[in-house]
Amino acid sequence: MTQDTIKVIVAGPRGRMGSEALQLIERTDHFELAAAIDRKHDGERIKDIEGLTASDAVIYTDAARCFAEVQADVLIDLTVPETGYTHTKLAIEHAVRPVVGTSGFTDEQLEELHALSEEKGIGAIIAPNFAIGAVLMMQFAKQAAKYFPTVEIIEKHHDQKLDAPSGTAVKTAQLIQEVREPAKQGHPEEKETHAGARGADFDGMRIHSVRLPGLVAHQEVLFGAPGEQFTVKHDSFNRASFMSGVQLAVERVMKMNVLAYGLENILD
Amino acid sequence: MTQDTIKVIVAGPRGRMGSEALQLIERTDHFELAAAIDRKHDGERIKDIEGLTASDAVIYTDAARCFAEVQADVLIDLTVPETGYTHTKLAIEHAVRPVVGTSGFTDEQLEELHALSEEKGIGAIIAPNFAIGAVLMMQFAKQAAKYFPTVEIIEKHHDQKLDAPSGTAVKTAQLIQEVREPAKQGHPEEKETHAGARGADFDGMRIHSVRLPGLVAHQEVLFGAPGEQFTVKHDSFNRASFMSGVQLAVERVMKMNVLAYGLENILD
Amino acid sequence: MTQDTIKVIVAGPRGRMGSEALQLIERTDHFELAAAIDRKHDGERIKDIEGLTASDAVIYTDAARCFAEVQADVLIDLTVPETGYTHTKLAIEHAVRPVVGTSGFTDEQLEELHALSEEKGIGAIIAPNFAIGAVLMMQFAKQAAKYFPTVEIIEKHHDQKLDAPSGTAVKTAQLIQEVREPAKQGHPEEKETHAGARGADFDGMRIHSVRLPGLVAHQEVLFGAPGEQFTVKHDSFNRASFMSGVQLAVERVMKMNVLAYGLENILD
Amino acid sequence: MTQDTIKVIVAGPRGRMGSEALQLIERTDHFELAAAIDRKHDGERIKDIEGLTASDAVIYTDAARCFAEVQADVLIDLTVPETGYTHTKLAIEHAVRPVVGTSGFTDEQLEELHALSEEKGIGAIIAPNFAIGAVLMMQFAKQAAKYFPTVEIIEKHHDQKLDAPSGTAVKTAQLIQEVREPAKQGHPEEKETHAGARGADFDGMRIHSVRLPGLVAHQEVLFGAPGEQFTVKHDSFNRASFMSGVQLAVERVMKMNVLAYGLENILD
Repeated sequence: MTQDTIKVIVAGPRGRMGSEALQLIERTDHFELAAAIDRKHDGERIKDIEGLTASDAVIYTDAARCFAEVQADVLIDLTVPETGYTHTKLAIEHAVRPVVGTSGFTDEQLEELHALSEEKGIGAIIAPNFAIGAVLMMQFAKQAAKYFPTVEIIEKHHDQKLDAPSGTAVKTAQLIQEVREPAKQGHPEEKETHAGARGADFDGMRIHSVRLPGLVAHQEVLFGAPGEQFTVKHDSFNRASFMSGVQLAVERVMKMNVLAYGLENILD
Repeated sequence: MTQDTIKVIVAGPRGRMGSEALQLIERTDHFELAAAIDRKHDGERIKDIEGLTASDAVIYTDAARCFAEVQADVLIDLTVPETGYTHTKLAIEHAVRPVVGTSGFTDEQLEELHALSEEKGIGAIIAPNFAIGAVLMMQFAKQAAKYFPTVEIIEKHHDQKLDAPSGTAVKTAQLIQEVREPAKQGHPEEKETHAGARGADFDGMRIHSVRLPGLVAHQEVLFGAPGEQFTVKHDSFNRASFMSGVQLAVERVMKMNVLAYGLENILD
Repeated sequence: MTQDTIKVIVAGPRGRMGSEALQLIERTDHFELAAAIDRKHDGERIKDIEGLTASDAVIYTDAARCFAEVQADVLIDLTVPETGYTHTKLAIEHAVRPVVGTSGFTDEQLEELHALSEEKGIGAIIAPNFAIGAVLMMQFAKQAAKYFPTVEIIEKHHDQKLDAPSGTAVKTAQLIQEVREPAKQGHPEEKETHAGARGADFDGMRIHSVRLPGLVAHQEVLFGAPGEQFTVKHDSFNRASFMSGVQLAVERVMKMNVLAYGLENILD
Repeated sequence: MTQDTIKVIVAGPRGRMGSEALQLIERTDHFELAAAIDRKHDGERIKDIEGLTASDAVIYTDAARCFAEVQADVLIDLTVPETGYTHTKLAIEHAVRPVVGTSGFTDEQLEELHALSEEKGIGAIIAPNFAIGAVLMMQFAKQAAKYFPTVEIIEKHHDQKLDAPSGTAVKTAQLIQEVREPAKQGHPEEKETHAGARGADFDGMRIHSVRLPGLVAHQEVLFGAPGEQFTVKHDSFNRASFMSGVQLAVERVMKMNVLAYGLENILD
């Protein structure tokens, strides 16, 4: 089955995620880099910037000019919230479908973008997390918690991480909370002979944070019931893990005519 | 929230699963044992049979008489296919909702029961597997395979198991097959220096069967993508693991007015 | 290679561990039950007591008489500390080698038994834990900690357990402590946004206690270093797991002429 | 406790392992780079070569001259066997203790180096694998197999790996073979309904090779016995995992006066 080529503008091509996106486009047959939007290097070609891909696509520092001059289907924006917001609006107005990685838009911005997307009939995807594996883990955990309300979360990260538990662990617990009635877990009279052994208490669920050098980002959600254990687990080894979600979003957004927030809402 | 008491007839109370069902009823506040159907012990009480629960419920060897005389909401049938089929028909005709654990009904039997259930407006659940954890594992694996088509299955069982891979592993692979395009996995030129190392080939997916004393029944489905791994896992330690599914089915069947086949079809 | 039959007296044959020991003897070709010591059933045969094995061996309520009348090689004592102490002394005096499962002997008792064993040249094994897997886990963890000083312990048990962390987790941490310099783990400025997330602090190591219905007794010790993770793990599914250690002890004690305390001291 | 500074010559500083060694030296307080031996860049400084560390140490293309002119304690050689052999001899003759990563020396070469090392009283370490985690996994697996002869190995690698099982899995099985009597595992009449499900047969043990994108190099050795499971596991995420072994070897070789082959022989 041949697929129509999707022409993509990348905003933030020299960032860590942006350069992954350039590689994604390079290795995906039906994706083509149309242009890039950057703060520097106006008029230069991607292939002339050290560390980027071999594309002839031109770099624009003026986003408005880019959308006006370049014929494209999709914008991948992996910049910062303020810039991203401007890019997203411009894109929709030029009938370019935005795929934006951020959790930084305000509710007002999201509402405005949603209305604009609907008015123009131009699909858009804004997502705080493009790692499909992490999103599936959270979705499945929420679904499983309906049947297995006794849950503990173990998340493991490298020992340079500052906060415990991780944002993903807390997010997972919040999603589970939506379907689970609060209940203290463990024996009603259980005692910690060493404080903290039973982990963090979140509505009665328990969250454990492991920190070890060598690890990257790992989480498992464990459900227990008489005679059985059910587990959903995600291991992220490097940033490449975000790109399968970006690819999916680029493909899905082509068939959408309204804005979706969160990768989970474009999964079947 | 108080729940109405559900009155249950158990068929096969002395079997391994049947006696687990008696215990389930005993420990569940809103379940009540109404009667039992057995090949022996006609007219005796459950509490008088060694190894059963302390219930006063009476045992019938004549199923038809049981349904005629006893006021009940649900039949839990954990007998053998032939008997189970008769019981299921009798139950529906007496407006008792059947929850039946079997994979042994013929297509004709299932069609007939479906029609009868629809005609009477009496819900029924027939399922080959009542372990919610195993059913969720298979459902989630199928869903994840849409996004992660590179899959390997590792199932582990006690070393008295005769067949490899397990039925659950094959069933899982078949479900994944419905959403995954066949593709050989591993390096195109990979070589086994010891035959069998790469496991069984199922449409290009790989299945590995571990057999060790001490184990019971365990399976994990591993999905790989650049930079990440996603895993769904189920450990079954004993037969109690089937009872959470039976309990759910008893509760759900009360609100159904047609037959459902397979636990997956009553999960949200 | 044929092995000489080892004749065994079991003290406490009706206890949970004692009845496992009877089964061990029954299924082990070169073991033979010589007699049993019990508080009841004097003069009866093991096979006449419901739930025990099919052996003709006679039960004694008088331990001294048992050792005087019965020709045996080994005593397996799985009773309580006070009784066990008396049995152990009697056994050594009658040149029967004791294998005793207890952590309840006082230091004075242990010293006395050690001296007696040495004087008579009769080997003896007293161990708080006969699960070889658990003992190996602790030994290997201690050894690995010499090279990987960054350690976290995750122990998982059924949710009826009262104390957290488990005794085995604390014991493991203590063994590691012998070879590891105290050091706070994790980022120096790490913060718990939910108290307890980072687990119990033991000399800078972290211990996490998971409690879920369905689980039995599980522990993993995780070591991290740049680019790698090393793990030792033990899962105990039921009491049968203690019997491989008892069997080993019975075989080893036959070649010993002094008392050893702790299973780890008879492993190679 | 202050430690004396150890002066190190690195051979092959631009190689993948060599550049890791430079970083190891840079981040280790009591290590100091004395010089480097390379095929190019004679007389230049390490800090002047792109991608290397900020050291002033000088590069020699003539190894003999390097050892003659530079005062050093240890040689880290991560080149190729032929060159490595020459360097190792030169080092010992100049009283510099070699730490060499290779499995490529012939038996004759090893014997000659051993004799030379003994004659001069200069310690040396030659090892095919410097990943302490991998070496511990193999050593512990061998030790555990004495008590748990029923073993299965699961190794997991990225899907660009050509051979299955991995060299480490085969090496592990060979070590276990030294202490385990050959025995077919699984049910005597077990049947593979899909060929290969039970993995590769190695003396009756079973080896399973998983290949998935995203993975790096992982292995677990599973031991089963009635009621329990014992597991030793190693995950290697990147080359940094070799450096803890190199560091240990550098420290240990300072106290040795004869050659040791294999990292396992310098572990306690």
